[in-house]
Amino acid sequence: MRVGVLLSGEGTSLENLCERIDAGEVPAEVVVVIASKESAGGLERARRRGIPAVAVPRKRHPDVGEFNDRLHVELEKHGAELVALLGFLSPFQIRGYPGRVLNVHPALIPAFSGRGFYGSRVHEAVLAQGCRVSGATVHFADDEYDNGPIILQEAVPVREDDDVASLAARVQEAERRLVPEAVRLYAEGRLVVEGRRVRILERPASPADGPR
Amino acid sequence: MRVGVLLSGEGTSLENLCERIDAGEVPAEVVVVIASKESAGGLERARRRGIPAVAVPRKRHPDVGEFNDRLHVELEKHGAELVALLGFLSPFQIRGYPGRVLNVHPALIPAFSGRGFYGSRVHEAVLAQGCRVSGATVHFADDEYDNGPIILQEAVPVREDDDVASLAARVQEAERRLVPEAVRLYAEGRLVVEGRRVRILERPASPADGPR
Repeated sequence: MRVGVLLSGEGTSLENLCERIDAGEVPAEVVVVIASKESAGGLERARRRGIPAVAVPRKRHPDVGEFNDRLHVELEKHGAELVALLGFLSPFQIRGYPGRVLNVHPALIPAFSGRGFYGSRVHEAVLAQGCRVSGATVHFADDEYDNGPIILQEAVPVREDDDVASLAARVQEAERRLVPEAVRLYAEGRLVVEGRRVRILERPASPADGPR
Repeated sequence: MRVGVLLSGEGTSLENLCERIDAGEVPAEVVVVIASKESAGGLERARRRGIPAVAVPRKRHPDVGEFNDRLHVELEKHGAELVALLGFLSPFQIRGYPGRVLNVHPALIPAFSGRGFYGSRVHEAVLAQGCRVSGATVHFADDEYDNGPIILQEAVPVREDDDVASLAARVQEAERRLVPEAVRLYAEGRLVVEGRRVRILERPASPADGPR
């Protein structure tokens, strides 16, 4: 499974996905990393691994359509079959990838999701509301923020003395488990979308299962 | 700590709270049980335990103010210091009990909470959205639905084959842990509300702690 990764930050989630792929746990290959900022640390991580790394700076493409034109040119050029949004803070238009875009959100959707809830703002809101539980979500993305069907979620506790940094770190630990698992399940053909629900098949779909 | 319990249903959460009190785990006493339906099974459970049990049928008091007049007369008559809403499906007005009303909600507030989200509707919505995690919340109630500061939350998994009944049962298991614990912390004077957040003191507040 050829995966295109889009990111805006340091790429720790990319690094972790690559490690799980290298360990043989995820039948996938990251074929291109695209960042919405030239300064994104994820680009350097990709280059160190020999993965094509491209900056498509959002600020140089103020028109969201043109910005997405550039993203999709790169995805297609590298033959991405699946798109993973790993901390991508700009709007991504699905276009030719319906049902083939995974997004990770640092909260338990539907809580603290949608427009305005990204990055540390999510954790600030969780702490401000005094929640005892937060978590991470991997879902299929569509053209609305944080809207598509949920694939995996993991809850994490919010501690009495948490600040944004400590809560973010705990949520990122959960993300490091969820993202490779979701890519694996997708690559094995085990995710079946039924309306807003995602069913996970017990074992990989195969022709012997008959028509589906 | 004298606790008045308001409920609308079978009173399994009441029964569980009484068991924890009987076991010496919660320094409290249920002094009255008030139901919004004459048919509420919780009334019979209360009577079996010798707890005063009163029906204030919502349908015979269509005016919400008059309905609450009757509730508050009963609470005051029995000297309730804390009010616990354990599956109370009618509107309760806080009146003389600010910061002294606990409500249990069968989801992780702010998800699936607020007007229209009560009883099995909560679980139907969680399943319809395909969430992988739900949970239970105990919070201080104010005069808005599901709005007050969160005291305790516990996440529970949503299974692939869950229906409303199986998910409700798993959430209720969490509620059976949270409700007695919240009453205990309140009775021990260990809950400090700071804006929308609740701080749990490590040990009971005592005069030796100095001014707070």
